Amino acid sequence: MPSYKAPVTDQMFVLHDVLKIAETDIPGYEDLDRDTTAAILDEAAKLAENVLAPLNPVGDTEGCKLENGVVRTPKGFLEAFDQMREGGWTALDCDPEYGGQGLPYVVATAVGEQFSAANMAFNMYPGLTHGAYSAIHAHGSDEQKATFLPKMVTCEWTGTMNLTEPHCGTDLGLMRTKAVPQDDGSYKITGQKIFISAGDHDMSENVIHLVLAKIPGGPEGIKGVSLFIVPKFLVNADGSLGARNAVSVGKIEEKMGIHGNSTCVMNYDEATGYLIGEAHKGMRAMFTMMNEARLGVGLQGYAQADVAFQNALEYAKDRLQGRDVTGTKNPDGPADPLIVHPDIRRNLMDQKSFVEGARAFVYWGAQMIDRAHKKNDADADGLISLLTPVIKGFLTDRGFECATNAQQVYGGHGYIEEWGMSQFARDARIAMIYEGANGVQALDLVGRKLAQDGGKHVMAFFDMVKTFIAENKGQDDEFDAAFLEPLKAASKDLQTAGMYFMAEGMKNPNNALSGSYDFMHLFGHVCLGLMWSRMALAAKAKLAEGGGDTAFYETKIATGRYYMARSLPMTATHLSRIQSGADTVMALDAANF
Amino acid sequence: MPSYKAPVTDQMFVLHDVLKIAETDIPGYEDLDRDTTAAILDEAAKLAENVLAPLNPVGDTEGCKLENGVVRTPKGFLEAFDQMREGGWTALDCDPEYGGQGLPYVVATAVGEQFSAANMAFNMYPGLTHGAYSAIHAHGSDEQKATFLPKMVTCEWTGTMNLTEPHCGTDLGLMRTKAVPQDDGSYKITGQKIFISAGDHDMSENVIHLVLAKIPGGPEGIKGVSLFIVPKFLVNADGSLGARNAVSVGKIEEKMGIHGNSTCVMNYDEATGYLIGEAHKGMRAMFTMMNEARLGVGLQGYAQADVAFQNALEYAKDRLQGRDVTGTKNPDGPADPLIVHPDIRRNLMDQKSFVEGARAFVYWGAQMIDRAHKKNDADADGLISLLTPVIKGFLTDRGFECATNAQQVYGGHGYIEEWGMSQFARDARIAMIYEGANGVQALDLVGRKLAQDGGKHVMAFFDMVKTFIAENKGQDDEFDAAFLEPLKAASKDLQTAGMYFMAEGMKNPNNALSGSYDFMHLFGHVCLGLMWSRMALAAKAKLAEGGGDTAFYETKIATGRYYMARSLPMTATHLSRIQSGADTVMALDAANF
Repeated sequence: MPSYKAPVTDQMFVLHDVLKIAETDIPGYEDLDRDTTAAILDEAAKLAENVLAPLNPVGDTEGCKLENGVVRTPKGFLEAFDQMREGGWTALDCDPEYGGQGLPYVVATAVGEQFSAANMAFNMYPGLTHGAYSAIHAHGSDEQKATFLPKMVTCEWTGTMNLTEPHCGTDLGLMRTKAVPQDDGSYKITGQKIFISAGDHDMSENVIHLVLAKIPGGPEGIKGVSLFIVPKFLVNADGSLGARNAVSVGKIEEKMGIHGNSTCVMNYDEATGYLIGEAHKGMRAMFTMMNEARLGVGLQGYAQADVAFQNALEYAKDRLQGRDVTGTKNPDGPADPLIVHPDIRRNLMDQKSFVEGARAFVYWGAQMIDRAHKKNDADADGLISLLTPVIKGFLTDRGFECATNAQQVYGGHGYIEEWGMSQFARDARIAMIYEGANGVQALDLVGRKLAQDGGKHVMAFFDMVKTFIAENKGQDDEFDAAFLEPLKAASKDLQTAGMYFMAEGMKNPNNALSGSYDFMHLFGHVCLGLMWSRMALAAKAKLAEGGGDTAFYETKIATGRYYMARSLPMTATHLSRIQSGADTVMALDAANF
Repeated sequence: MPSYKAPVTDQMFVLHDVLKIAETDIPGYEDLDRDTTAAILDEAAKLAENVLAPLNPVGDTEGCKLENGVVRTPKGFLEAFDQMREGGWTALDCDPEYGGQGLPYVVATAVGEQFSAANMAFNMYPGLTHGAYSAIHAHGSDEQKATFLPKMVTCEWTGTMNLTEPHCGTDLGLMRTKAVPQDDGSYKITGQKIFISAGDHDMSENVIHLVLAKIPGGPEGIKGVSLFIVPKFLVNADGSLGARNAVSVGKIEEKMGIHGNSTCVMNYDEATGYLIGEAHKGMRAMFTMMNEARLGVGLQGYAQADVAFQNALEYAKDRLQGRDVTGTKNPDGPADPLIVHPDIRRNLMDQKSFVEGARAFVYWGAQMIDRAHKKNDADADGLISLLTPVIKGFLTDRGFECATNAQQVYGGHGYIEEWGMSQFARDARIAMIYEGANGVQALDLVGRKLAQDGGKHVMAFFDMVKTFIAENKGQDDEFDAAFLEPLKAASKDLQTAGMYFMAEGMKNPNNALSGSYDFMHLFGHVCLGLMWSRMALAAKAKLAEGGGDTAFYETKIATGRYYMARSLPMTATHLSRIQSGADTVMALDAANF
């Protein structure tokens, strides 16, 4: 059975030594001294390691069942959810006005990583609730907030997001679900929504559905979409639960993974709903929380890679197979452990260097979100908007790849469900699809984010990398050669690609769009190259200080060197592909494929 | 529900226009005129498309069940197996002396592709039988051949290969299964074998297990391993079935995929076995059929990619979502089909160009195996031995990747089992693991095959590429620029990597082994680049001839251009990684990971 160990030491390093959260001028960060952060992460780790992780294979094996209209979650999920609620873990970064603890989002992100790594399917129940909370918090009326938020902060009521319909996922303008206005100001919602994660279950008193629907007579397409609150049970004026609303579960989907989460077809049959924000502005309401939601999915990608890596590493240390070609390492045993073999190490180092780089990238992104929200910093908001599709697309693609590679370390046992490695890969697979499939992320990046505000944010990114290199070079030849030079080369590839898009995309947008996926990955490598350079710098500083965990800092630098030497060269291939343009991509008639 | 269409047109093109099998001097090829090949492939296609493919999701959903010691296969499998047997499909390339049809292996390979694409789990039953047939045919006594082969050619009796034990897979020297000699010349086999595909089932009268075991007192390690025939039912002198042997199914494994195949734990409890070939030479007996077995797994990799691609393509043509940014393509519909979008095309072209290149590569390899076997051609044998780990490792890695990418085209539906795309990815996953995990293939390539016979075969490969380029350049600037120049550059990267291994591997073998995986992929890209160049040349010739399927040949060239422009640049990154050596790979102590 696989296990999970929360990476608190590394989380602390990223938060306090790299991002230096305790020294940042973002409101709310002033309380984050090392002891406070460590106490939170250590306490979260107990829940993640001892409660959520052991339930992960249970959720996978049992799955969710629809019995007489009621969704039954796997054995032990309710008790675990109660522990999570009682521990206040669902309220970490929520608004104190509604019962939240008001901690920075970056801390909630670090905790969320632990929970998601330990049990991705489980953590989607509070995760979706948090998304619905954020939408109501940002766009709901005071009355709506007062009615729904306190119960959602505690997860006594959970939440869902209802966007997709059978015939439309990405293209929500095709939506058919209708919202007919009633005399009392409410709406009657009718339609079918699919792929509704945590759509229904037996772990909360009420489920608060956020539903996108069209008000008849409104604008055509995406501009006619509005957002509604549709509670499973209507809420009386005194806050008590009232009548059952006309929303029901059509079925639970059989999926490749995340079996512990109930992915429902939801049927709305003149269900009572309440408009959030303005009519026809539903997409805008959804978009305001998209950075956060997509960052959360990018987090899922590397979190699954991390737990898979941890188990692959243990297996590689334990499993005796073959001998080190440079000399026996375990002369008293029948064979050497797998980890002596260079190709096993190559695989493990790929995983390790990705996971740690991704962690820094996501926490940095979370810090930007805090800066944008808590300081109304438009530059931070612009930069995180630019980087969001990279975080989502790159980290989930590579996260799945790493989980698959971790499975490979187990040989045949990796394919047997009992050993647990298959689940990590199967669960990680969804992150590439939901919350906007990765191809859509690439389109968002190249088709929208690059040119946003006149290209200001991507220029700011390049300036930041340039400044970082200029400020740090010339002090340590080894650091320059191992980190700054590859970072500079990769960043140059990214700029060249961007210039190619500007020049050739003008002539034909397909020249840019044909390279969008490669650009997203190219950008991801540059970001991880930047994070590794920052981490190596921080580790060097700690080593210079002396007295700390020397092995940890040296390992950090060595892992960074691996990423720079072995992963960053990928930017050259991405650039070549991008520069080959649209000709070969668009050459065939659809009929000739 | 997904479907499968056998790619007969493309198979015919590769066999007759590229490999020109009808014009080859290999014994047995002289009967392969176009009509004969087409008749075989068309007939096979009926079985693949109409019988095997519809059973594919059935096998996945039902799986195999162990009931009171008896393995039950999914509903419909027995009837399908009967149709396969009655059609003579299991005997295609078998020895006529034992009831086979004596057709070239290359034809059996093309048929095998269809069956494997249609239903990988099902096709493993005859596939494993063929492997066991080959081992007995190559190394068994005349009596053993007479007793077992006729029934195995018809698949009245099926076969298995028993290598792995719980504590050893790759390192078979650690094996514990014992074979104790008996006075009558037989052996008593005792031990446990795991991951035995088609280990037991209800579709044949008998199961002939080939079992690796150690005869007590023999040499230590891998040199003390012998190969035995252990029938489920002993065979009487008259060929009738006798007593049940002491071999039983311990359990059926729950796996990530290929649920339709029974992957068994087999327990041998003083089971009667018969030595094949010489004592302690079991590994040599296994190795002689390894090229064929591993080529068969490489085939599985691209075959799953093909069926996944076919379905993704249909979905991309049907599913309406979004609008072409360069102008609406479906003005009367609510949206344009997915296939108008550049990134969807990029994904589809990646799949298509891989599958078609891989097909040519595998058929070329099968032709080499025919040449090696039927003409005792040592050069062909050397070259296919060199290329076997590339075929197995590269094609299964990329095949899984393509199946995963095909799944991505479906968006959320790709994750729902009902749509069938998940199965293709889950099934394809095993091909990277069994028959030697891909890391072991890379080790075999770099640690053994490169230097085999003084490096003669890899030099022959480079000469072949060089000659091909020299012979074909200067006749068509477009062809030179689109095909020969990228092929030359990629081949140069491969040579540079080879030279790096020679120079640096001398100093420290880890410098070579740390780059083995990248080298395997680099080599694979060069091979596919060569195949695409050969295919483009053949298509150009057909276009020049005139009168044929112009769209097919033009599409072929366009698809080749895509591969050369978009996939071959990957060789540069592989080379960079290889040249970064072992330092960053081996830097960490195991304890510091």
